Amino acid sequence: MAERSFQLYDTTLRDGTQQEGLVLTVEDKLAVARRLDALGVHFIEGGWPGAVPKDTEFFRRAKSELDLRSAQLAAFGATRRAGVSVAVDPQVRALLVAETPVITLVAKSHAGHVSHALRTTLAENLAMIGSTVRHLVRAGRRVFLDAEHYFDGYRLNREYALAVVHTAAEAGAETVVLCDTNGGSLPDEVGAVVADTIAMTGAAVGIHCHDDTGCAVANTMAAVDAGAVHAQGTAHGYGERCGNANLFTVIANLLLKRGREVVPLERLPELTATGRAITEITGVPASPAAPYTGATAFTHKAGLHASALRVDPDLYQHTDPALVGNVMRTLVSDMGGRSSIELKGRELGYEVAADSEVVARAAGRVKEMEQRGYSFESADASFELLLREELADAPQDPPFEVETWSVGVARRPDGQVRTEASVGLRIDGRPVTATGHGNGPVHALDTALHRALDPCFPVLAALELVDYRVRVLGGETGSGAAARVLISYRAGERRWGTVGVDQNTVTASWAALLDAVHYMLLDGSRGPLGTPSLAAATG
Amino acid sequence: MAERSFQLYDTTLRDGTQQEGLVLTVEDKLAVARRLDALGVHFIEGGWPGAVPKDTEFFRRAKSELDLRSAQLAAFGATRRAGVSVAVDPQVRALLVAETPVITLVAKSHAGHVSHALRTTLAENLAMIGSTVRHLVRAGRRVFLDAEHYFDGYRLNREYALAVVHTAAEAGAETVVLCDTNGGSLPDEVGAVVADTIAMTGAAVGIHCHDDTGCAVANTMAAVDAGAVHAQGTAHGYGERCGNANLFTVIANLLLKRGREVVPLERLPELTATGRAITEITGVPASPAAPYTGATAFTHKAGLHASALRVDPDLYQHTDPALVGNVMRTLVSDMGGRSSIELKGRELGYEVAADSEVVARAAGRVKEMEQRGYSFESADASFELLLREELADAPQDPPFEVETWSVGVARRPDGQVRTEASVGLRIDGRPVTATGHGNGPVHALDTALHRALDPCFPVLAALELVDYRVRVLGGETGSGAAARVLISYRAGERRWGTVGVDQNTVTASWAALLDAVHYMLLDGSRGPLGTPSLAAATG
Repeated sequence: MAERSFQLYDTTLRDGTQQEGLVLTVEDKLAVARRLDALGVHFIEGGWPGAVPKDTEFFRRAKSELDLRSAQLAAFGATRRAGVSVAVDPQVRALLVAETPVITLVAKSHAGHVSHALRTTLAENLAMIGSTVRHLVRAGRRVFLDAEHYFDGYRLNREYALAVVHTAAEAGAETVVLCDTNGGSLPDEVGAVVADTIAMTGAAVGIHCHDDTGCAVANTMAAVDAGAVHAQGTAHGYGERCGNANLFTVIANLLLKRGREVVPLERLPELTATGRAITEITGVPASPAAPYTGATAFTHKAGLHASALRVDPDLYQHTDPALVGNVMRTLVSDMGGRSSIELKGRELGYEVAADSEVVARAAGRVKEMEQRGYSFESADASFELLLREELADAPQDPPFEVETWSVGVARRPDGQVRTEASVGLRIDGRPVTATGHGNGPVHALDTALHRALDPCFPVLAALELVDYRVRVLGGETGSGAAARVLISYRAGERRWGTVGVDQNTVTASWAALLDAVHYMLLDGSRGPLGTPSLAAATG
Repeated sequence: MAERSFQLYDTTLRDGTQQEGLVLTVEDKLAVARRLDALGVHFIEGGWPGAVPKDTEFFRRAKSELDLRSAQLAAFGATRRAGVSVAVDPQVRALLVAETPVITLVAKSHAGHVSHALRTTLAENLAMIGSTVRHLVRAGRRVFLDAEHYFDGYRLNREYALAVVHTAAEAGAETVVLCDTNGGSLPDEVGAVVADTIAMTGAAVGIHCHDDTGCAVANTMAAVDAGAVHAQGTAHGYGERCGNANLFTVIANLLLKRGREVVPLERLPELTATGRAITEITGVPASPAAPYTGATAFTHKAGLHASALRVDPDLYQHTDPALVGNVMRTLVSDMGGRSSIELKGRELGYEVAADSEVVARAAGRVKEMEQRGYSFESADASFELLLREELADAPQDPPFEVETWSVGVARRPDGQVRTEASVGLRIDGRPVTATGHGNGPVHALDTALHRALDPCFPVLAALELVDYRVRVLGGETGSGAAARVLISYRAGERRWGTVGVDQNTVTASWAALLDAVHYMLLDGSRGPLGTPSLAAATG
């Protein structure tokens, strides 16, 4: 049974966007809200209407464009200014204009901040909280109060911090959210402060944590264990400095480790897909190592584990990845050795364990190529091509041969830049040439390659390049060093990655382009890849 | 006073290398060990001699090439095989051959794993532990025992788990390390199990955590609070699946939040530099949001905070970044608005607050360029150029003008690939052309640009391109979409970044190359940049 009394509150669209590099359009914000609602999150904080023009626009459009099923929208803002009547405060009025069912007010609960940052008296701050909460409750809103710097404030002046909670609750705030704004707390103190605050005020208490000690999730769990009935967090833990509590981790921990159904259990398998959809919208990749939803969260590399995994995967997994919509992956690497090759082969649909010579040859080639800078961990297609070469009884004739290619980029005196590529191939012994233009060298080469090949191999028309990454290897050596290029492709529902390595980024890219074409030209007997590509996972 | 009785144990070189993408040469391993030793870590686990050839080689070379001051090396291995005398077990013999002062043995402490993975009896497993520990202690080694799957094992069969600890301690193991191998535990249970284990066995207990619930650091802190005297972790939390406990975070938390001087306090400011040096060696970037050492750990973006930060930085920092060798940074973004521009300007040495028109114009340009895909957050030099343009009373004549540039990459039929670039400039009205070759288009353009400019502007000879990143914007649109290119430079001790955005990656790269040259040609009156570039920070 879903716990409807527990409040799961997302602040990706406000606090999350304070992360370096995270900039969302109104369209992006609407798309993120839809995904969080579909997951079953209860409250979605959309931004600060009035203060941020984009957020005002978000709330305006949300009224007609968002059809939320599980979630209510919350507008974020501050208590009235000192010495001003709440009825005429324009910032407070903007909160009502947003017409959200919920308004979350931020207020100072740290006596030092009241004096030094807010520059008013302790009494006036309490009056600001009381009058603003009452004003919004009378206007028919559910009001949450974010008590900023609560844990630091409690350490400095416990009585005043408690008075803030008491004042807000008495004025009608439904929940008072204790914020570890600077993120410096540890779980034991968070648990103790939450328990004392509930005991002293009787208020319904929430928790909002930042990860500056690496404990945002643990602090959130400690607060809930101590009686908090409301948890805030962000998708992937996006947020300023070290980020906020990762709401996905909090959700999975509460359901799987505490048996608290804060979202319906049947929606939990949407967790990983929700995370991926959100990284695609934000363009800011989540950590591949993120608990539960990360691309490597259930990925095994060690030879020790790889052997045991063949016996029973549950021996090395704390939970079934299917419960959160993720999958177990194994990596091809020298550490894993032959067990990894066997396991990865099986994942791709090849039972190679019986043929120890094939496994040994493949492991040897992988090892040698890794030393030159290759990485197959995100390039399933390139690995599968290698494995098939070793499996083939006799060398197979390639469907075409490459003789020449070239690409030029030139800026003319009028400022126009033109990119043109040409390829010279042999298909069935017949010379075929083609040229292509593009927005850059890889695009132009891709275009020329398709022009040359697609007439003979129509299946290639479905092949679409979706992402392109360059990693300069060797760290400090700059553009003269070797480069590893990873390219992600899509063909219908299938996605895969290829890899190329060369001193020249264009040559490395060409190798990855060719692998994709060869992979697509393999016999059509195989279904979609068994695992999502890493590119899809990291958005 | 440094706490010499507490054992700080790093396993980056073994467990850390099980992370996807992390592959270290013997040279890399030696370099990482030197950095950890300099920080004051007490034990460095180098690998598994005998089982992994590279690790055997590491221990061989370490004897002559590592001159450790704080740390002792540990060799990792397993207890003897079932039914075999320890004296003739080749794996155990390889541990002695490594000639390390410390040997860490991994042993099963989960009754289910003994039967299903090890396929022996519970009694024989205890005998294997006892005899192997005694054998190594008699050979003069300090022995630590890693009790694998301890917390899961304790839940299933507490008596057996305790018997493993008791057996190891009685046989002479100095510390028994309780491992949350699958990473599924939460801090309250870790604390309770550690306390019970110490109470029941009297053993000196250590802790080894993984981050599968996002609680590796919190679990480690809970274990230490409950009496553990030994903590294991890895640099940046590198490790399999979700990673290990981040040893840097554990060190800073223990010193700054618990007052336990596990490394000498005077070395703590080396923490951030140690982290950066290690990412440069591994080539695997740490999370920029990592607590304490991350590039954004003390980075502020929100306008709300940026205003308050002008009053007092300590209001929004849980600790002084200088204590861990990090710095406060502020970001230029539309969220921060004018306060951010002022603060960033001050960071770069420009007092612009007094001139509100300059600030408004700069903020407007930044906002407009960000909408086109620019990001100044990692491109201090490009931002400074923009700010100086707004500060200049009159438009300044550029030191040179660009008329044309071009670059071509061609693969000849013999397989040779050649890259050539040419540039056409005007310096003081005089036409200057130059060509350059390189290992790729950016390298060739950089070479041609230097050939054209360096004779007139000798200061440019010191400018070195050290890193190059391409980000395809728009996610799903592939090589036809806009690209953001970030380039990092070094000139002597200074480092900075520039940014270019264009549909064409080469055009975007050219813009970033030009910004670097213009930045270098600014008057020489300014000192080094006040902040490390992000490129340096993420290694």
